[in-house]
Amino acid sequence: MSKFTAHFESQDFPNPVIIDCTASAQVSQMYYEWINKGIHVVTPNKKANSGAFDQYKRIRELQRKSRIHYFYEATVGAGLPIISTLRSLVETGDKIVKVEGVFSGTLSYIFNNFNGEKSFSQIVSEAKASGYTEPDPRDDLSGMDVARKVVILARECGLQLELDDVKVQSLVPEPLQGLTSSDEFLNELPNFDEEMELRRKGAEVSGEVLRYVGVVDVKTNEGRVELQSFPKSNALAQLSGSDNLVSFTTSRYLRQPLIVRGPGAGPEVTAAGVFSDLLRVAFYLGAPS
Amino acid sequence: MSKFTAHFESQDFPNPVIIDCTASAQVSQMYYEWINKGIHVVTPNKKANSGAFDQYKRIRELQRKSRIHYFYEATVGAGLPIISTLRSLVETGDKIVKVEGVFSGTLSYIFNNFNGEKSFSQIVSEAKASGYTEPDPRDDLSGMDVARKVVILARECGLQLELDDVKVQSLVPEPLQGLTSSDEFLNELPNFDEEMELRRKGAEVSGEVLRYVGVVDVKTNEGRVELQSFPKSNALAQLSGSDNLVSFTTSRYLRQPLIVRGPGAGPEVTAAGVFSDLLRVAFYLGAPS
Repeated sequence: MSKFTAHFESQDFPNPVIIDCTASAQVSQMYYEWINKGIHVVTPNKKANSGAFDQYKRIRELQRKSRIHYFYEATVGAGLPIISTLRSLVETGDKIVKVEGVFSGTLSYIFNNFNGEKSFSQIVSEAKASGYTEPDPRDDLSGMDVARKVVILARECGLQLELDDVKVQSLVPEPLQGLTSSDEFLNELPNFDEEMELRRKGAEVSGEVLRYVGVVDVKTNEGRVELQSFPKSNALAQLSGSDNLVSFTTSRYLRQPLIVRGPGAGPEVTAAGVFSDLLRVAFYLGAPS
Repeated sequence: MSKFTAHFESQDFPNPVIIDCTASAQVSQMYYEWINKGIHVVTPNKKANSGAFDQYKRIRELQRKSRIHYFYEATVGAGLPIISTLRSLVETGDKIVKVEGVFSGTLSYIFNNFNGEKSFSQIVSEAKASGYTEPDPRDDLSGMDVARKVVILARECGLQLELDDVKVQSLVPEPLQGLTSSDEFLNELPNFDEEMELRRKGAEVSGEVLRYVGVVDVKTNEGRVELQSFPKSNALAQLSGSDNLVSFTTSRYLRQPLIVRGPGAGPEVTAAGVFSDLLRVAFYLGAPS
C-alpha cells in the first residue's frame, strides 16, 4: 500500500485522486494518510464514515484544512443525489429536523411486496432466488447496512453518532441469529411468519403499510432502524419495486418534505455516483463547468 | 446598467458575482456582457435560458470558454435539486430518455384537489383567494410558465428547443382568453366546468387521475405541456399539497425513474436555490468543501 501511494508523491500527477471501490475497513484507514499527502479521495465504501467518530472527524478536519477533497455520494443510495442534497441544505443554513427513508433496495422490495398475498418467509426466499439479497439474507435483514447509512447521514447533519448508538430493530428472529447456514435460516423462517403477519394486519386495519426505515432524528439526537407503519398517503407507503426513498424534513421543507426516490443499488448507478464525485473534484479544482 | 458593471472592472473584487433576482428579459440580456467581463452570474430568472436559443448558446459557449460560472438551479423547482441532478446525469454519460413532471405548485394544488368534491372553477377561485395563484390565474392556467421550464430542461438535455416549439395545452378556455379582467374570467369559468368534469370522470373510470405536466421527450425531440391522466401507482398521481415532482427516465434509470419531489416555489426555497448556486461558484473557485 505504501509503495502505491509513494508513486503519487512525485510531481508527475498534479491532482491525484484515489477511488476506493472496496468495502474494506482496512483500506478506509488509509484515507487520512492519502489526504495528508495531497491525494483526493472518492469512495462508495461506507466504512470510514460509519466507523469510529474520532477517526472520521480527523479525516474531515484534515481534508477541510488542506483543501483536499473527500466525496462519498455513493455510500447512500448509489447514484441518487442524497448526500449532496443534504449537504447543500446544511451549507445554505437550513435546519435539519429529520431524515427518514428506505435505504435498502432488498428491504424495499420485500415490504413493497408484503401485501397479504404471500407469507414473509416466501417473499424473502423469492428475493434471494432472484439475486436481490446478499448470499445470506440475514445480512440484509439484520439492518446493519441501513444502520451504517443512518450514521453517515447523521454525521452529515452534525450529530456525533457511533454505529453502536443506532437503535437497530433486526428482522432476524433471535433464535435464528446463531444458525450457521442461510439455508437453515430460510427453512426456519416460516415459523415466524405468523408474528410478521400479525404486524402487517395491525397496520392494515389502520389503513397503513409496513416499511423498514432508517431515521435520523436531529431533535432527539438519535439514529434508529425500525419497522414502522405509514398511512397510504405517505410517500414511503407509495414505494414500488426496489426503490430507495429519502425524505428530508427541515425548517424550509417542514410541512412537505424534500424527497429523492429511485433505484439505490446496482453496479451501474453506483459507478455513476462515484463518477459524478470524480467530476466534482475536477470542477472544484477549476475544470470548466 | 453599464455604470454598475464598470464598477466591477476594477481589481477590488477578484471574483465578482451578479445575482439577478429579477424576472426581466432586459436584465438577462446583460449576462453575455457580464460574463465577458469576468463576472459570474447566478439567477432564478428564466428569461435567458428559455429565450432565443442562439442567445442562450452564445452565453453558454462564452461561459465555458472563459471559465466563468453561470448557474440557475432555482429556475426550475426553486431549491429542489433538479437542474443539478439532470446535469450530473448528462455529465456522467447517462442518456436521458424523458423528463416529465409537475412544475407548477399552483397547478399541482389545483389537480391534487380536483377529486370530484368540488368543481374545477371552484378550486381555481379558492386557490386564488388563498394566494396560491398569480393575480390573474390565467397566467398559471395558460401553461406558459411551465413551458419555459420545459425549454430550460430540454436544452440541458441537449435539445435545440425554442419556446414556440413547445406544444402547450392551455387550460384557459379559448373564449375566455380575451377577457380583460381576472374577475370576469372567474365569473365565466364555471361555464366550462362540465367539460373538465368529463375529462376527470374519463380518467377516473380507468382508475386514473389528471395531472398537468411538462414533458421533455428526447426521443421525439419535443417539449409538451399538457393535461394527462396517470394510473394511481404513478408517483405523479400520488402528489399532494402544492408539491412539484420531476421524474427522470434515463438509460440508467429506465424501469424505475429517478424522482425529486417537494415544494418548488416560495421566497424561502427560491433563496435557498440561489444561495446554493452562489456557494457552488465559491467551491468551483477553490473555497474549501
